[in-house]
Amino acid sequence: MTENDRLGVGMVGYSFMGAAHSQAWRTVGRVFDTRVQPVMAALCGRRADNTAAAAERLGWAAVETDWEKLIERRDVALVDICTPGDTHPEIAIAALEAGKHVLCEKPLANSVAEASAMTDAARRARERGVRSMVGFNYRRVPALALARRMVADGRIGTIRHVRAQYLQDFIVDPESPMMWRLDRERAGSGALGDIGAHIVDLTRFVTGQNITGVSGMTQTFVPERPLDDGSGSYGEVTVDDAAAFIARLDGGGMATFEATRFATGRKNAMRLELNGSAGSLAFDFESMNELLFHDHTEDESTAGFRRILATEPDHPYMQAWWPPGHGLGYEHTFTHQMRDLLEAVGTDGDPEPSFADGLAVQHVLAAVEHSSSNQSVWTEVPRQNEL
Amino acid sequence: MTENDRLGVGMVGYSFMGAAHSQAWRTVGRVFDTRVQPVMAALCGRRADNTAAAAERLGWAAVETDWEKLIERRDVALVDICTPGDTHPEIAIAALEAGKHVLCEKPLANSVAEASAMTDAARRARERGVRSMVGFNYRRVPALALARRMVADGRIGTIRHVRAQYLQDFIVDPESPMMWRLDRERAGSGALGDIGAHIVDLTRFVTGQNITGVSGMTQTFVPERPLDDGSGSYGEVTVDDAAAFIARLDGGGMATFEATRFATGRKNAMRLELNGSAGSLAFDFESMNELLFHDHTEDESTAGFRRILATEPDHPYMQAWWPPGHGLGYEHTFTHQMRDLLEAVGTDGDPEPSFADGLAVQHVLAAVEHSSSNQSVWTEVPRQNEL
Amino acid sequence: MTENDRLGVGMVGYSFMGAAHSQAWRTVGRVFDTRVQPVMAALCGRRADNTAAAAERLGWAAVETDWEKLIERRDVALVDICTPGDTHPEIAIAALEAGKHVLCEKPLANSVAEASAMTDAARRARERGVRSMVGFNYRRVPALALARRMVADGRIGTIRHVRAQYLQDFIVDPESPMMWRLDRERAGSGALGDIGAHIVDLTRFVTGQNITGVSGMTQTFVPERPLDDGSGSYGEVTVDDAAAFIARLDGGGMATFEATRFATGRKNAMRLELNGSAGSLAFDFESMNELLFHDHTEDESTAGFRRILATEPDHPYMQAWWPPGHGLGYEHTFTHQMRDLLEAVGTDGDPEPSFADGLAVQHVLAAVEHSSSNQSVWTEVPRQNEL
Amino acid sequence: MTENDRLGVGMVGYSFMGAAHSQAWRTVGRVFDTRVQPVMAALCGRRADNTAAAAERLGWAAVETDWEKLIERRDVALVDICTPGDTHPEIAIAALEAGKHVLCEKPLANSVAEASAMTDAARRARERGVRSMVGFNYRRVPALALARRMVADGRIGTIRHVRAQYLQDFIVDPESPMMWRLDRERAGSGALGDIGAHIVDLTRFVTGQNITGVSGMTQTFVPERPLDDGSGSYGEVTVDDAAAFIARLDGGGMATFEATRFATGRKNAMRLELNGSAGSLAFDFESMNELLFHDHTEDESTAGFRRILATEPDHPYMQAWWPPGHGLGYEHTFTHQMRDLLEAVGTDGDPEPSFADGLAVQHVLAAVEHSSSNQSVWTEVPRQNEL
Repeated sequence: MTENDRLGVGMVGYSFMGAAHSQAWRTVGRVFDTRVQPVMAALCGRRADNTAAAAERLGWAAVETDWEKLIERRDVALVDICTPGDTHPEIAIAALEAGKHVLCEKPLANSVAEASAMTDAARRARERGVRSMVGFNYRRVPALALARRMVADGRIGTIRHVRAQYLQDFIVDPESPMMWRLDRERAGSGALGDIGAHIVDLTRFVTGQNITGVSGMTQTFVPERPLDDGSGSYGEVTVDDAAAFIARLDGGGMATFEATRFATGRKNAMRLELNGSAGSLAFDFESMNELLFHDHTEDESTAGFRRILATEPDHPYMQAWWPPGHGLGYEHTFTHQMRDLLEAVGTDGDPEPSFADGLAVQHVLAAVEHSSSNQSVWTEVPRQNEL
Repeated sequence: MTENDRLGVGMVGYSFMGAAHSQAWRTVGRVFDTRVQPVMAALCGRRADNTAAAAERLGWAAVETDWEKLIERRDVALVDICTPGDTHPEIAIAALEAGKHVLCEKPLANSVAEASAMTDAARRARERGVRSMVGFNYRRVPALALARRMVADGRIGTIRHVRAQYLQDFIVDPESPMMWRLDRERAGSGALGDIGAHIVDLTRFVTGQNITGVSGMTQTFVPERPLDDGSGSYGEVTVDDAAAFIARLDGGGMATFEATRFATGRKNAMRLELNGSAGSLAFDFESMNELLFHDHTEDESTAGFRRILATEPDHPYMQAWWPPGHGLGYEHTFTHQMRDLLEAVGTDGDPEPSFADGLAVQHVLAAVEHSSSNQSVWTEVPRQNEL
Repeated sequence: MTENDRLGVGMVGYSFMGAAHSQAWRTVGRVFDTRVQPVMAALCGRRADNTAAAAERLGWAAVETDWEKLIERRDVALVDICTPGDTHPEIAIAALEAGKHVLCEKPLANSVAEASAMTDAARRARERGVRSMVGFNYRRVPALALARRMVADGRIGTIRHVRAQYLQDFIVDPESPMMWRLDRERAGSGALGDIGAHIVDLTRFVTGQNITGVSGMTQTFVPERPLDDGSGSYGEVTVDDAAAFIARLDGGGMATFEATRFATGRKNAMRLELNGSAGSLAFDFESMNELLFHDHTEDESTAGFRRILATEPDHPYMQAWWPPGHGLGYEHTFTHQMRDLLEAVGTDGDPEPSFADGLAVQHVLAAVEHSSSNQSVWTEVPRQNEL
Repeated sequence: MTENDRLGVGMVGYSFMGAAHSQAWRTVGRVFDTRVQPVMAALCGRRADNTAAAAERLGWAAVETDWEKLIERRDVALVDICTPGDTHPEIAIAALEAGKHVLCEKPLANSVAEASAMTDAARRARERGVRSMVGFNYRRVPALALARRMVADGRIGTIRHVRAQYLQDFIVDPESPMMWRLDRERAGSGALGDIGAHIVDLTRFVTGQNITGVSGMTQTFVPERPLDDGSGSYGEVTVDDAAAFIARLDGGGMATFEATRFATGRKNAMRLELNGSAGSLAFDFESMNELLFHDHTEDESTAGFRRILATEPDHPYMQAWWPPGHGLGYEHTFTHQMRDLLEAVGTDGDPEPSFADGLAVQHVLAAVEHSSSNQSVWTEVPRQNEL
């Protein structure tokens, strides 16, 4: 391996997403044959002491407290953005303009305008060989990558129905404290943008189709929550607690979507079911190593939903891991994401999902919010030129 | 048992529903201690020979070919209507005016106007002690009756979400023939009225709440189908193949509904999930003896969705049947329905679901159709005075 | 239908099994096209008043208090024995000798000697056209009859493993009272003969093979239980609470068996899994309408256990019932049993399972008891000449 | 962190187990707060070139081709043995005598005599502060560690039944090639020692009880397999393809065990079910993030097996990982194993499972083989003095 095969990574943010990304950066080159080996060059956070402790813990070689400095570092060739959505545009655009590859956590931004600007920056940077990717990690669940492959192979025929749900319950308790994810300024929206974005992206990924229009509604069940500052006072929740919408796909199918943090007992139930003219597929992240498949071309006397354990060597990403039946976990989605990004960087390819994909999701979220604010009226989603 | 304890039943129609009702009428008095014993007096059908054969097969003592004659019979005290929806109003109203109790299959009628007229007739008849009931048989699945009891007992707290689906796949094949259920004149609507009606009724039944408004869409995937007359020509499908809508409940919760005959591989997946502030419930008719329950008041380290086998003696209707773990089947829902109807007749009570309940469902279906035809705009459901 | 097409049935016993059989006799001719129509002629019990009440409730035309009188009745052509096992030999042999067809509940008898005598009587009667059947009703679960068909069709290849369990929990509580099922004199054995007999029979039925030898153990966890007579005194439990054994099949496969009434939370979990060289099948009675099938000849990337809903028209017995996805319940196994018995009687065929099948099961149970009493030493099961 | 807080690790072997252990050594200190930080000092293999490539890939700093040299290295304080079972005794005893801590993969050895000698060596070394552990990694599945905690807390009461199965299917095809795992000289036994050992250990771990006696049988379905040398000739399979045995626990319960590589369609179905007087637990590694629990102290009308997602912060090992519902994978069991080992080394504690635990398992396996060779006669397992 030559020096040219190494890629210095600088990461901004080190909480939940930062920890997951770190585990992935540490692991990817040990498990996959990537053309490029990542080097965990520097971690950036606002407070020097906390950032230094995190860097030692997570395995980053250096520390920065100013993201502009991080971008300037000569040993950083790729910037990994793990901060809340309101900071994404500024950091991503600056990094791209500085010629650094960018991996940006989802949702790409908090508005269509911002996402659009970022996508423009990504397009300009691409002309100079600079790569960008938005972090819809669930595309890298082997069972879901397998689902996409099966759809592309025609195994379920023409898609009639998509049934997508992302169900969590972590703020069911009204005394659960206020946090940045419940603040529109920081997070853009609530369940809609945080988890609804994932099922919109997955629908596009697995079906290979676009959403053409929506009719939606949102709701905030608990409008105030205790502040975490010990003051005893309450802060206003300015985002949705739950969102639901119906939609149409450009292939002629119908879809229903639901994203909520109030589905009591559902911890991370990201579910996707597709019904086609030749078969069906179903998935639930709470059983992430399984894909259900019904083959409608079989004799009806022995047909039924089969449970594919997506752990065979032939399944996406699995050749690098363990024998059949030895499942993977949540963090592997990030390791696979890094693998695909490194592969694209190493081969001058375009990593997916692109910022344009992130923008397409943002358009859908914006349409849902528009419909929800206008008597649920049908709202068309602007056609995306390139995906 | 005196002669007064016997109740002569006359049934109109003898295909799928008629066979199911016959099995229930034969069984109910042998299994349950009903105050009134049904007597299978007469079966009514249009063709004398076929009707006679059906009557012998199904166990009816006499035959009529004119439903007006059936109503006039002195040995018929209750008329059981198992014909397509377009015939319900005329038969039901005539029977009620003749002082005969009425059990009418769902949906109550093909329009709000008809359902309204029937409900008025039922109210007038009730003043004379004549009983009426609409046949939403799924209310009598023990697991669903248990769900209602648990909701009423506060086991899941304030309801935040209802997720209702009725998924079938019996006309996925575009060469599957034309039939009356696909003809708006006979059936009123397609998946919406046939199976969507069930999940609307069940939502009202289990939650004890009304639906206040909807935003919906419908679709016909296969617009023409071969006629069953051997002519080789095609008939137009004039109803929806699938319907989806979002809704709100008067208790403040959100709901999503989906009814389709194109969910490949789903045979009779009538599913209902409720998420409340204190717990959740989930049901799928394909596993009709099971109710899933998550108790959010438990310690989180041992909490989880439990699978209640709804076969314990304490569960609704189960005392009369078999030991725990020995499940029931589809037709038992009708046996239980007849048991509750006979109990109401025998005690001068009001059987449920009433025609007013049937009308309430019809209002929801009409609102969905209105919304679907008007850019999915939010459409309020008229408030029901009595339920 | 002529008088000759009618078959008078006389039943002995009217508790749990009697109620289930009555429901089946009432239903079978209404649902299936049987050549012979059963007539519920007379019910026999020891106490006249209770028996009369049961007869009215369950639909029997007459009452007897002496089983010998029942056998003598001219309107009784078939005797259905639903009493505890210690009474089976005397009644069954007398009925057969009187030229009456016999349906005898399982286990056939409480010992090999008795079962052998009954089988001899059945062979002699057969020469005179008299039919006999032992009531292993679970053979008539559609999913299990489908499993047998698939094994016979070679869908799972050479059988390597059978994994059979019958798990119940109804006497886990040590204060649950003494009853006849816990008395060796009446019941022969405990879990072994009551429920273990079913999984031995099903193994023979589904695989088409015999068990050649066993090594077993049994245990009584609660040796004394309160008498139900209000005396406050305790009675000795003289049967096993649980039994487990390993076995070999004459086709070269291995098998494990377990029968227990102490599997807390398992209500009626009769489970059977077969692993063959070309596939596998799995079943659990708690989900009785489902059969799991793994086809090992499929491409491994889409292979997996599929859940067949055994409710298709092509599935055994299902043509007569409801549309796909509309499941059956426990009592249907008896209706199907009566259908097959009537078919055999009507066509001069040999109904299955025969008394010889019942004897074969008894030989296995005896071998398990012998092994359990002799340090679990391997115990061969005598070869059955005819099955 | 001082130099003393670092612990040099030397690993022998780098195939399947070596890769899994490497991933764990790389990860453990980044995720858990261990008192001691592992340093991946040296990897040992027979061929220099292959070992060097593996070391670079897996992240080991140096390479050895002689395990005695590895033990001598001053930068190696702990030896991790990932080779086939026949090499365990020599390496482990030498390492212990040299004062190096030892982690030895399971099974501890290929015979009781060897395991006994290793346990003696471990006891002697322990007096000098040298630690040893056998690698039964499945003890570190959070759901199984939770099961043990719940049993210890009395949540299922007195254990009546253990039902343990380890089902795989990777050599169902008779043309699947010969390998060291099928050679008695190298592997000791087949399914029995390879996977049966795990369920024996887990039974001891979760119940806290010993197995007192067994009756067993084993079988080799495919006695010859093609050699992997391209010669076209076949090698003899000298181990069992499958083993089954019944057993008793010193707490009075019964147990059934089955280990096979011929359970077609079961990829890594390590299943454990426990039925106790107060409840039941069930687990299947194919759904490794789930534990099923039935609480028999609940009201029977709402009781049922609940699915605990073992991903809550309060669950064993989970505080260090992701939010609820974000599951772990196979390799995490090794990371947790390393965490517990490092904790023991750092606190002068005794890591579990000890070599004595490994010996106890070996005694059970030997008893099964003895019984299998002697007409399945009941065979007592020697009492273990210390565990």
